[in-house]
Amino acid sequence: MVYSAYIELHSKGHRDVIDITLKVSEKIRESNILNGIATVFVIGSTAAITTIEYEPGLVHDINLFLEKILPYNGKYRHHETWHDDNGAAHLQSALLGTSLTVPIIDGKLSLGTWQQIVLIDCDTRPRRRKIVVQIIGE
Amino acid sequence: MVYSAYIELHSKGHRDVIDITLKVSEKIRESNILNGIATVFVIGSTAAITTIEYEPGLVHDINLFLEKILPYNGKYRHHETWHDDNGAAHLQSALLGTSLTVPIIDGKLSLGTWQQIVLIDCDTRPRRRKIVVQIIGE
Amino acid sequence: MVYSAYIELHSKGHRDVIDITLKVSEKIRESNILNGIATVFVIGSTAAITTIEYEPGLVHDINLFLEKILPYNGKYRHHETWHDDNGAAHLQSALLGTSLTVPIIDGKLSLGTWQQIVLIDCDTRPRRRKIVVQIIGE
Repeated sequence: MVYSAYIELHSKGHRDVIDITLKVSEKIRESNILNGIATVFVIGSTAAITTIEYEPGLVHDINLFLEKILPYNGKYRHHETWHDDNGAAHLQSALLGTSLTVPIIDGKLSLGTWQQIVLIDCDTRPRRRKIVVQIIGE
Repeated sequence: MVYSAYIELHSKGHRDVIDITLKVSEKIRESNILNGIATVFVIGSTAAITTIEYEPGLVHDINLFLEKILPYNGKYRHHETWHDDNGAAHLQSALLGTSLTVPIIDGKLSLGTWQQIVLIDCDTRPRRRKIVVQIIGE
Repeated sequence: MVYSAYIELHSKGHRDVIDITLKVSEKIRESNILNGIATVFVIGSTAAITTIEYEPGLVHDINLFLEKILPYNGKYRHHETWHDDNGAAHLQSALLGTSLTVPIIDGKLSLGTWQQIVLIDCDTRPRRRKIVVQIIGE
């Protein structure tokens, strides 16, 4: 059985970290699938999906880390291609990844207590985002 | 068909790299699923799952690399939140990822000869870890 | 339903970035699966699969970034193990990941307009590569 759902949300960009765990769980409940997997996939090339303990300290820390290795005001050839300013956002997305697959067991995501599913929107402006939650199982 | 299994193991933490390929293969055999996928997911926010050639040189190299970009004794706001010391471990986990999906063909993981599935436990203390192996197929 | 397919291609190595989106879409068409997921997995430990906007500027930028954090001519213990020269390639692969799962909806990959699936071949020589496309759904 396959169940497809979407999560739509607004982000502020600039590595806005948004906890989407409850929204993903809601889609699993709607699907009536008890055992299987959920693939959480963000449409777009300047955002990422990963897991992290969602608390303000780590949200700050991951921002600092990504800015250190891929600063927004660095030199990117991408800026010349499109007269754009979000080269860092593209690389952060490619590095962290845009897809996450989590097992579902007895109707629940098999996450740890301090492990949340987050969208990190790396773009340089506010964005409306669409995330696919594709649930497969029985 | 969905088959759920767990791998439980002890790690030493501090980026202990543990080859779990044989244990995952064992679960696939138990499942009797011949074609499909296996999602390998570590429960927790201070460990990661990836593939690497499991040999002592690369185990050393990935340790050095992660320590260079995210040193344990760096300054992390997370340490202030929980009076904790594992901020680097959380970021290493979010960066490498906690989930890996590998195709199963004719009852076997479609890995290369020098490509192993590893758990990297980035935490700053020994941990007992639980890894979900969720197998879907026919 | 499970449908297994392979994409075989030649790469130049040295972080050759190859857009494989059309080839993956072709396999989905062949599978006749309309809703489900496609797991794209590269066999081997010196290449990676991710998503990126495939344009020459970003291809250049991701090359520069990976070379900066993991230079080919850096010191790697792996080189001593096998008298090899591709330690950086192994670490780049473990960091970016070798597996990507993308939802399929109404027969199409749920990618953004500027979001392509790419193979990044990090090895230090030309390689023949085999990528598994495992499609599950209905």
